[in-house]
Amino acid sequence: MSPATVLQPGATIGILGGGQLGRMLALAAARLGLHCHVYAADADSPAFDVVQKWICAPYDDRERLAAFADAVDLITYEFENVPAETANFLAARRIVLPDPAVLARTQDRLIEKTFIADLAIATAPFAAVGSLSELAAAVDAIGLPAVLKTRRLGYDGKGQAMIAAGGDPLRAWEALGRAPTILEGFVPFEREISVIVARSRDGQLQSFDVAENEHRDHILKVSRVPAAITPDVAAQADDIAARIAKAFGFVGVLAVEMFVVHDGSGTSVLVNEIAPRVHNSGHWTLDGCTVSQFEQHIRAVAGWPLAVPVRWADVEMINLIGDEVNDYARWLGVTGAAVHLYGKSEARPGRKMGHVTRMFHRRR
Amino acid sequence: MSPATVLQPGATIGILGGGQLGRMLALAAARLGLHCHVYAADADSPAFDVVQKWICAPYDDRERLAAFADAVDLITYEFENVPAETANFLAARRIVLPDPAVLARTQDRLIEKTFIADLAIATAPFAAVGSLSELAAAVDAIGLPAVLKTRRLGYDGKGQAMIAAGGDPLRAWEALGRAPTILEGFVPFEREISVIVARSRDGQLQSFDVAENEHRDHILKVSRVPAAITPDVAAQADDIAARIAKAFGFVGVLAVEMFVVHDGSGTSVLVNEIAPRVHNSGHWTLDGCTVSQFEQHIRAVAGWPLAVPVRWADVEMINLIGDEVNDYARWLGVTGAAVHLYGKSEARPGRKMGHVTRMFHRRR
Repeated sequence: MSPATVLQPGATIGILGGGQLGRMLALAAARLGLHCHVYAADADSPAFDVVQKWICAPYDDRERLAAFADAVDLITYEFENVPAETANFLAARRIVLPDPAVLARTQDRLIEKTFIADLAIATAPFAAVGSLSELAAAVDAIGLPAVLKTRRLGYDGKGQAMIAAGGDPLRAWEALGRAPTILEGFVPFEREISVIVARSRDGQLQSFDVAENEHRDHILKVSRVPAAITPDVAAQADDIAARIAKAFGFVGVLAVEMFVVHDGSGTSVLVNEIAPRVHNSGHWTLDGCTVSQFEQHIRAVAGWPLAVPVRWADVEMINLIGDEVNDYARWLGVTGAAVHLYGKSEARPGRKMGHVTRMFHRRR
Repeated sequence: MSPATVLQPGATIGILGGGQLGRMLALAAARLGLHCHVYAADADSPAFDVVQKWICAPYDDRERLAAFADAVDLITYEFENVPAETANFLAARRIVLPDPAVLARTQDRLIEKTFIADLAIATAPFAAVGSLSELAAAVDAIGLPAVLKTRRLGYDGKGQAMIAAGGDPLRAWEALGRAPTILEGFVPFEREISVIVARSRDGQLQSFDVAENEHRDHILKVSRVPAAITPDVAAQADDIAARIAKAFGFVGVLAVEMFVVHDGSGTSVLVNEIAPRVHNSGHWTLDGCTVSQFEQHIRAVAGWPLAVPVRWADVEMINLIGDEVNDYARWLGVTGAAVHLYGKSEARPGRKMGHVTRMFHRRR
């Protein structure tokens, strides 16, 4: 494995994963005079289109993975479900940042939640469910309503089943194929927020302003910055993200999704989940900030100093999902709106096809 | 030739020329979900690095040019010295925007200056020099000091010779190889400014705020926006650029470099030269504005509506020329500075290697 030298302009960063996040990482790297090489399994990978070198092959093709590692100076990834074997195989040949150990902790909801709880950071109550008796015990301990979630490979609401008050826990578990799951207590949250934080190789931290997120059908639909929260809540959220990044020894950009909960004793912040990568709720930084989350990630992994992000507008980021991509023409006519299309060929339902950032120059 | 249909996301724009301007055009097109195909003669073309399809071949290789035209939906160019035969060969096969007729008018300083003067827009006094007698007549008419400039292929101070008061005009002409030239009267300007204006296919016009430019060794070194000029001078400059764009029937982004001259009778604006393309003095729009000149050009040629540019900061754009590219590391540490590197492999003296935009959030 080569040492983690600071990259020079002209160096090549390998990106595992070829979705829109990889694409926007590659565009940010290009601005900085860095080359990117993309490895992805899907032939219709939007990131292939903006780089010279790419490999389309399964994530277990060791020959192609080795060729990829040989062709780059450093490897990063744009999705958290990189198979552990892939990450380890590559890490034996080239520096991989963030460290693949992070993946093991974030690919499994039980391990992730336990890790967070061990940091004395609040989460929804949770319990592992791997058997009928565990299911019964979990429902007893946590109560209903609750959400049953597969431990692995869930995203955008996939691998989740709601259990209403008085509902049938077994039926929910069977709907998930009796997979290893966790039962999470239902959190009556006031709002959902997220913090995007960057950590450099030498431990410097920079976070972007907290975003407030609105989901529709379990998929992020709108992020607004600033979030409608008090400075105290923002500081709590920031602190949580920073502690997680430090605990991971993270290098790069990390997103933490949280719930703001209002109860009798005041307002508290609970962690919902961690994404060890750039995140949809940070796309606004491409247009409304002096540095984007993508550039910040590239700076971090390259061993360059992080930028101090200065947000210059109030922003609203709207995802274009499925057929909504056809709205691009209307958005092109809206002053202060920046249109981003990911170049995906097919607008399947639920597929993120692009996004729009609306900038409001006068702070609200 | 295919009709000039409005492009759809997923369409391919062909870019003639592979320098940093082509590179930044391709990056802007990618954001909008458009593909780019780059044709350039130089193997070390920075634009090749951010696209999937590119052709490295001479501009007179008709076979490769035909293949290029066949592979794209529309062609644009990033430099004004596209050979007329190349442009015409391509235009017979595909829509080329801006119309190649513009090239004929801007590749020759005499034709360009005459065209501007015919619009009743002021320029420095000029006269054609193609013979010894014309040289003598020109010096008589215009006086000294003056600048002798080759009619074709001059840029960044190349193809120019200053003639001081009392200097030897013949010696200057011989230094330029007795090429067809024009003699331009020396203009004691107060400042240099430029206007970047976009014109859509349907004649809509949008200009960016006027930039004030500082050259060093005939190469742009710094652009500042806003320019230190009165609203009246800014309006004059805007109006001049708009009239030129209209007179050309221009589609795309056009830059007009001007002198602000102060004399007894007040302040006037003289046109120095026209660049029928995105321009170095508009690079600040990538960071300090809601839309960049590159995106605006792509929108215009694609047949999409232009954006209304909203500048949100005072900006200073600093070119990194030759060895100055090594300053990138220092600039990475400056808050509010955006670093752009063009990915050129060799930092030759006078070569534009990158630029930095400094954003000052509080308007000066």
